Formats: sequence, C-alpha cells, structure tokens
Amino acid sequence: MSELYVVGIGPGGYADMTLRAAQTLNACEVIVGYTVYVDLIKAHFPEKTFLTTPMRQEVERVRLALETAAAGKAVAMISSGDAGVYGMSGLCFELGKDYPEVSIHTVPGVSAVLSGAAILGAPLIHDFAVISLSDLLTPWETIEARLCAAAQADFCICLYNPSSRKRRDYLSRACDVILRHASPETVCGIAQNIGRDGEQTRVLTLAELRTTEADMFSTVFIGNSHTKVVDGKMVTPRGYKHE
Amino acid sequence: MSELYVVGIGPGGYADMTLRAAQTLNACEVIVGYTVYVDLIKAHFPEKTFLTTPMRQEVERVRLALETAAAGKAVAMISSGDAGVYGMSGLCFELGKDYPEVSIHTVPGVSAVLSGAAILGAPLIHDFAVISLSDLLTPWETIEARLCAAAQADFCICLYNPSSRKRRDYLSRACDVILRHASPETVCGIAQNIGRDGEQTRVLTLAELRTTEADMFSTVFIGNSHTKVVDGKMVTPRGYKHE
Repeated sequence: MSELYVVGIGPGGYADMTLRAAQTLNACEVIVGYTVYVDLIKAHFPEKTFLTTPMRQEVERVRLALETAAAGKAVAMISSGDAGVYGMSGLCFELGKDYPEVSIHTVPGVSAVLSGAAILGAPLIHDFAVISLSDLLTPWETIEARLCAAAQADFCICLYNPSSRKRRDYLSRACDVILRHASPETVCGIAQNIGRDGEQTRVLTLAELRTTEADMFSTVFIGNSHTKVVDGKMVTPRGYKHE
Repeated sequence: MSELYVVGIGPGGYADMTLRAAQTLNACEVIVGYTVYVDLIKAHFPEKTFLTTPMRQEVERVRLALETAAAGKAVAMISSGDAGVYGMSGLCFELGKDYPEVSIHTVPGVSAVLSGAAILGAPLIHDFAVISLSDLLTPWETIEARLCAAAQADFCICLYNPSSRKRRDYLSRACDVILRHASPETVCGIAQNIGRDGEQTRVLTLAELRTTEADMFSTVFIGNSHTKVVDGKMVTPRGYKHE
C-alpha cells in the first residue's frame, strides 16, 4: 500500500504547523504543493524532493500527488491552513478512487478561521458560520441565502475569500445582506496576512466594514449581537443566559 | 508588562500542538489548566510549574492565571483544541480588564471541528456552521433557531457537546429540527476520542444519527445535500456549479 498524506501547514511558516505535520513531512520522500506554500516551509526540509504546480491547477496537483504515491513513494501534499476547509483533501479522496493502491491520510492544521480569530481576540467563542464569498464554484444565490440565514440566527460569521480583482464589491454586497438582520453597530474584524509578513488586524463596525476593501489575503469576522470590544480586541461571550 | 499566553494544544497529546504552542509553553514558567489536559502534555515539560483546577471552575482558573501573571511570572493557560472555540480566551480578555499590567496573547490550536473532520474524511470542504448543543449558558430556543437556519441554508453542520448525562435526548432533538429541511439520507459522521486512546469514527445517515447516542467525548458532523460517502469517508464537494 502506498501512502499519501494531506497536510495542513497552518497560516504561516514552519512554527505554525503541528508537530505531527512536521513529523509527517520529515517521514515522506516527496512534498507536493502550490509554489507559494512550498516556499514558506522549504528551508526546513532540505533533503526532500519538492513538486510544485501553479495556482488554480488543483486537479493536476492532486493527480501529480496520487501518481507519485502510486509509483511507490511516500508523498505529502501540503495545504495552507487546513486541507479540510475549502481545501484539497476532498478532491484527494474523490480522485483517489482511481488509485486503489494509495491510502490517503489527513493531518489537520490551523485554518484561517482559527488563526484569524486568535489575532483579533476571541470572536468565535460561541456558535459560528464559515462562508466563502467566492462564486467561482457556487452560485451567488446560495452564498446570499447562507449569509441571510446565518445573520438571522445570530451566528458569528467568518468570511473566506472576501474579495478578488473580479469581485471587488462582494464584501459590500455581503454586508448589505447581513444588515437586513444585524445592527450596523455589530462588532467586526479583519485579519490580514495572518502569520506572515505584514500581518495586521482591524476592529470596526458592520457599517464601516460595508465600505471597506478587504484584499484576497484577508479573513473577515462579523460578531453576533453580543460581541463587544474589550481593550481593542473582538470578544464574544460564552453564553447569554446570565448577562 | 507581564505576559499571559492562552494556548490551544489541539485534540490529543504533545504531537497535536503547533510548534509555536510548544515553544510558548517552553518559554513560560507556569502552565495553568484543567487537570485532564495538563496530564496529556505534562511529561514533555518536566521543569515547569503546573497549576490545575477542576472542570467547570473556568472563572477561578482564569483568575489564577491572571494573578500568577500579575505577580511577574510568564504564564501559559492551556485549552484542549483551540482556546477560541467555546474556549477560555474570551473570558481571559474579559477578566483581564481587571489586570491592566498583564498582556494577553493567544496561540491557536486545532479545534475538534478540524481534527474530527480530518479523521472522518473531508466533510467541511464547503460552508459550514458550528453549533453547541449545551444549553448550560444558551437557551434551547436559540440553539434550535440556529440548527433550523443552518439546515435550511444547506450548511454542513458540526455539533459540539452533542450530549451529556443530563441531556441524553438532545442529539435526537437536534436531528428532528434538521430533518425539517434535510433528507434522512444526509451523510453524517461521529468522531469520538479524537487524537486519544479509543479514537473511532462512524459514518451514518441522518435518520440513523437520530437514534444513535453520542457521548460527551464525541463531535458530530452533518453533511450538506451534496455530501457523499467515498470509500467509507465523508466527503463534501468543493462547489456545486459543475456537477
């Protein structure tokens, strides 16, 4: 049986992965990944063979990893954050059906929903919804329905892919949907370049978020009706009964 | 300025924490935590002072950590999973207002939503909602409204605290709410004792989940309408446009 490990490396560099992730990469011969993520960790694994593919070529990258594993090498495919959140682990299982001799394992990592929350304070202490604003593979109507449902039920909300060059106004449109049910004073936060050079955070109101541009390296957090600002941090209480 | 680090150690033992978490614990003099979590990692930090408090005494534990930091020691407070998901980091910021001389930092960890997903396959590849079934601090009406909204908008759902001795039927009641909008054939999964002795997973339908008991060491996953079983794994596709 050949082995393919799908490894989430967390938000930034080497220190942000788990010890298990580092051990797994050390135990594999070949590490496959998107060029940018490989560059974040390459120096720590000098004896490994690295195979990289450019952005958006997810199917080709997964096939490359599966073919290399099927040829008898222990392979790790790395993903930024966690491979299971808008990541590649699903595609590995789906395409892996064509390679019955390859056994697929996943090693979880710290996704931006957790690392972004950590630098903003404690926005996700209670129930939350994670929604991607990318309509590349999902109709906008589905995204809007989820934003609306999450706001109506007073979830904290974390937005992945808040904008891109082709979708400059999506964050503003998302805020408009949320504003149907949430106060313009709702506490929000933006976490940018988490764990990397240029890391920064901003805490602001939902009304302010509506007119703010967040770039593609940002993760956006929208509090629930109980979220507050404590010493500049975004903090959601643990429960609501005893307030 | 004194320092308090709130550190998520991930689901299981030493290997499940990030390198940054291990470095942080090594750099602190005192490690504070709930007895069970301290026992999971204690052997790896033989020279540290450990302070433990029993379950449910969260406010006392946070005050102990803040007092110790205020007295001039570098303190880490550890949390299972991630301290920012139903965890203690929010309480640290809230009570930290009384200790202006203590600077609070958070180190994220792999929460059960990510580690449970990893052992079940890839259930959270698309938008998801995380909901706790504990009504200790939240009215059941709020929990029910969130379950209903998440199911109606076809989110994947991850349930924390699916049951306890006093709430044996809560998982069944939650399934009844979700079944108002989701098919009884919806793919579900249970991850038990993640990263610890006795780790196991089960993939089943929503109808089966309704009559299954999940203990307090379980995390429950309910797929969206596109989630499928691939070689025994629970897999949600990345998008819906090109199916």
